[in-house]
Amino acid sequence: MSISATPRRIGLIGLGLMGRPMAMNLLKAGHALTVWNRTASRAQELVAAGAKLAKTPREAAAEAEFLLTMVSDPPALEEVLWGHEGKNDGALGGLRAGSIYIDSSTISPALVRKIAAACAERQVRFLDAPVTGGDWGAREGNLVFMIGGDEATLKEVEPILGVMAKKWFHLGPNGAGQTIKLAMNGILALQVGAMAEALALVIRAGLRGEQLIEVMQASMARSGVLDVKSPLMVKGDFKPSFPLRLMHKDLGLMLDLANQLGVALPATAAAREVYSYVKGEAKEDLDYSAVMRFWKK
Amino acid sequence: MSISATPRRIGLIGLGLMGRPMAMNLLKAGHALTVWNRTASRAQELVAAGAKLAKTPREAAAEAEFLLTMVSDPPALEEVLWGHEGKNDGALGGLRAGSIYIDSSTISPALVRKIAAACAERQVRFLDAPVTGGDWGAREGNLVFMIGGDEATLKEVEPILGVMAKKWFHLGPNGAGQTIKLAMNGILALQVGAMAEALALVIRAGLRGEQLIEVMQASMARSGVLDVKSPLMVKGDFKPSFPLRLMHKDLGLMLDLANQLGVALPATAAAREVYSYVKGEAKEDLDYSAVMRFWKK
Amino acid sequence: MSISATPRRIGLIGLGLMGRPMAMNLLKAGHALTVWNRTASRAQELVAAGAKLAKTPREAAAEAEFLLTMVSDPPALEEVLWGHEGKNDGALGGLRAGSIYIDSSTISPALVRKIAAACAERQVRFLDAPVTGGDWGAREGNLVFMIGGDEATLKEVEPILGVMAKKWFHLGPNGAGQTIKLAMNGILALQVGAMAEALALVIRAGLRGEQLIEVMQASMARSGVLDVKSPLMVKGDFKPSFPLRLMHKDLGLMLDLANQLGVALPATAAAREVYSYVKGEAKEDLDYSAVMRFWKK
Amino acid sequence: MSISATPRRIGLIGLGLMGRPMAMNLLKAGHALTVWNRTASRAQELVAAGAKLAKTPREAAAEAEFLLTMVSDPPALEEVLWGHEGKNDGALGGLRAGSIYIDSSTISPALVRKIAAACAERQVRFLDAPVTGGDWGAREGNLVFMIGGDEATLKEVEPILGVMAKKWFHLGPNGAGQTIKLAMNGILALQVGAMAEALALVIRAGLRGEQLIEVMQASMARSGVLDVKSPLMVKGDFKPSFPLRLMHKDLGLMLDLANQLGVALPATAAAREVYSYVKGEAKEDLDYSAVMRFWKK
Repeated sequence: MSISATPRRIGLIGLGLMGRPMAMNLLKAGHALTVWNRTASRAQELVAAGAKLAKTPREAAAEAEFLLTMVSDPPALEEVLWGHEGKNDGALGGLRAGSIYIDSSTISPALVRKIAAACAERQVRFLDAPVTGGDWGAREGNLVFMIGGDEATLKEVEPILGVMAKKWFHLGPNGAGQTIKLAMNGILALQVGAMAEALALVIRAGLRGEQLIEVMQASMARSGVLDVKSPLMVKGDFKPSFPLRLMHKDLGLMLDLANQLGVALPATAAAREVYSYVKGEAKEDLDYSAVMRFWKK
Repeated sequence: MSISATPRRIGLIGLGLMGRPMAMNLLKAGHALTVWNRTASRAQELVAAGAKLAKTPREAAAEAEFLLTMVSDPPALEEVLWGHEGKNDGALGGLRAGSIYIDSSTISPALVRKIAAACAERQVRFLDAPVTGGDWGAREGNLVFMIGGDEATLKEVEPILGVMAKKWFHLGPNGAGQTIKLAMNGILALQVGAMAEALALVIRAGLRGEQLIEVMQASMARSGVLDVKSPLMVKGDFKPSFPLRLMHKDLGLMLDLANQLGVALPATAAAREVYSYVKGEAKEDLDYSAVMRFWKK
Repeated sequence: MSISATPRRIGLIGLGLMGRPMAMNLLKAGHALTVWNRTASRAQELVAAGAKLAKTPREAAAEAEFLLTMVSDPPALEEVLWGHEGKNDGALGGLRAGSIYIDSSTISPALVRKIAAACAERQVRFLDAPVTGGDWGAREGNLVFMIGGDEATLKEVEPILGVMAKKWFHLGPNGAGQTIKLAMNGILALQVGAMAEALALVIRAGLRGEQLIEVMQASMARSGVLDVKSPLMVKGDFKPSFPLRLMHKDLGLMLDLANQLGVALPATAAAREVYSYVKGEAKEDLDYSAVMRFWKK
Repeated sequence: MSISATPRRIGLIGLGLMGRPMAMNLLKAGHALTVWNRTASRAQELVAAGAKLAKTPREAAAEAEFLLTMVSDPPALEEVLWGHEGKNDGALGGLRAGSIYIDSSTISPALVRKIAAACAERQVRFLDAPVTGGDWGAREGNLVFMIGGDEATLKEVEPILGVMAKKWFHLGPNGAGQTIKLAMNGILALQVGAMAEALALVIRAGLRGEQLIEVMQASMARSGVLDVKSPLMVKGDFKPSFPLRLMHKDLGLMLDLANQLGVALPATAAAREVYSYVKGEAKEDLDYSAVMRFWKK
């Protein structure tokens, strides 16, 4: 869903698997982009395409009408926003009053509230806006944003979102976007975890995993994610599409939230420990479907 | 997938939500059907349509070229097959050498092996053939059979299966059908359990369950069963389609099998306890999606 | 607690780690003992001490005023009691009207009820009477019996129990003994499971397991079973005292009971899967404290 | 174990159930004590006994040779140490080079490391020193300290510890004290959780909880904590001795640590969700043995 956009000054921090293609789409849409990444070399292609490279997160935020962040976890985001002690290099310090800050990392609603308070002090408007759709969705401009924050702010941001996304949902005040995102990743983690347990069982019982998959695809147990993941799980092909360490982190954030609210999540908690076991054993970067390795003899 | 069939003498035991429409399709296809059910009144419509009503399971088996059973759990099946002490009323005692026995109940692979041995002693050929597709699939002749047993026996049975099913899978020796069935129900139970946990979380966080569903349906977390079940879960409409007590029983059978094999299933085990909690609290018959009630305040 | 006893005719079936010393204490107290064991060679020492060796369970029961069984699991007990099809060798067939049957195996309350019904048909009185105290308690006549059944029957049995036990508890009707026994083993399994998880954590954090044990023993976390097991767990000395496969079986019986009653046991269910994992990986017979191997790298 | 002590200038922050009696023992031993608490009124008795009341955490630290903190959780400790933005009221800012800081709160090893780094910058020596022994142990000077940090620093602190404790353990570098403390609380939480599951089962099976307790106390399943807690659990007397919300928090810290290290703790994770469920339902402050309420009908 592309919306023709007036060129704006945009800062973008975090050039990973998701951030890079998001940045490229913003450039292609004609926006003036300043980027920052911990490993500066990841910015080369974007700089060649016209992006400016900032030396610090603060510098990436300084001229921006809109700042986007897309980093891997809460500690990485805190470092980007508040910077290093005594260095005055954090993005929050650079943001101008009147600007809009959009975070698309997956973080806790608690950190969302802390960021919202810090933005409010600086007259910066803030949206939590995690995404789904994967790196493929990021390249194609086909992401889905889950948004928490003020509706009027969202309206202003829509021309920018339209460059990256096919769809967005306004879900409530700050934190609502992250809450829905965590819930959704919990569903994905358990779907894949369920597939892994079922495969482990039929294989140990002497059958082939492919048999379960074939029958499952003729049944209600079928699902989008299982159609994609289950053949790879049976082959043992765990090249990371959505890395296990990130899914494991998201399950942790979901359980933190649930435990603060006093909502018991027995199956999610059980699955998290299985992911943790595999993370603890793994030497290399794996897709979260590698949860199957728990049963490896 | 209807296959034109020579009329055969068929016994069918178990006239529940699944057994009745299966029997009706066999009648419509022109077969001679003798039925038995613990509550005989459930046979009325079938008798009106031409079925013969047996007085005992043994009698239902006595003339059959093919015997089908479709009962709710392993104890019910053991009673049907071996009868009551001293009464000589069990179906096994009635089966003629050369006949074929097909069980479509969901039971343990261990019980399958015990039945297979008892059939072998009597020169009866046996298939474990649990189904998926629900009562809707049973009415429409759209079931899927998961079959364990001898391939030649299956060939002989296919004209009969074709009256009830759109598809069947030959999965291996006796027990293979039940193993795959249990694994599949485990996946379903965890998919619905995952949805329930995610809904419980977002609702306690102050959002509406419909919001999670709407976003989920635009994402990879979407699945057939969640499309059907999640709106009912949010409404609290738990009219039984697949009863919770049967799903709970199937999870128990799956965990029994896994524990015999030494395959740890942490998330399935956690989910089973949640289903158990709701079963223990429930006064009425509920669909398995009522697992949501675990979080009811 | 030894009670001077009139010599009685006693049958004892099951000469494992527990049954053998129990039998020896009965012989020493002057009773006339007939024994049976699947592996007959295990009876040698007892025969040398004056026991008669029966050829079948039925024969062991035939002359007995009191029959005791002490076997490893429910299937073993069912085989002993009902015998093999067509062989008429089961103990139930041998029991005389008026005799008393005491089962000290750990089995399900459901099987207790089935046995109680079969005994009632034969005018045999029946107690479920599982024990605690280990093989050491069996040798020293220091067992504790947990008893379900009729109080008057228990009174008649007390002179015999007094030869084997220091204490017994009358807990209610048939099944009550097994229910308490299963609950108690569940507590033991979780205490040892908790110790294992805590040790796994501190060791992975770079500390030594002995440090946790030393501090624990100065604290409320101390317990009898942990005093005994934790040093062995740290050393990796898993010579079976109470075999893991039996603890795993008892956890299964406890969870079966709980799930029939609709009582959710989340931590017990989680622990059972960990025991199952270790059972599935183990090549040899191990003590249940070998649950530690779950975390072995 | 009281050690005669030269009077020293001590700051103590946190006057809860534990902090107050610890402070009183320091006063009685003749030390000069400056205290701070969020609710100042809790200091009255101590001020009457000679303590000085500080206006901020910073002031409590300013003159101290030794600073102790004893607060309820990591956020409370962070607020005490770093103060409020722009107010310059945190204890860290007050600490003098050469002083020693001892934290006896239960916090994460990760926060320990952050504090250790902040102390090192200020030439302050730091020990993590959580305790066990409860408010009774605090009153009697019978606590046990679990200590992480430099051995020479511990030597200097021993005369002060000796006023409050019967015993202390030097467990390794900073973080080791907290790691052992979390592991121990995990064992306690699972022991009580196991008792609760076992009681829930026997009660639902129609027996009385007292029966299980009586038998348990004649067996290996006995333990210090169960001797104390189980009679209260059966009575439903959940007056807080160790509050459930703190045990729930400690389980969260333990699981955070385990998940960072990739150590799966299935039973601890399952138990945590049960504690969470009860926390979410509870209206009042309860002892952690109130985990029993999970099964309340």
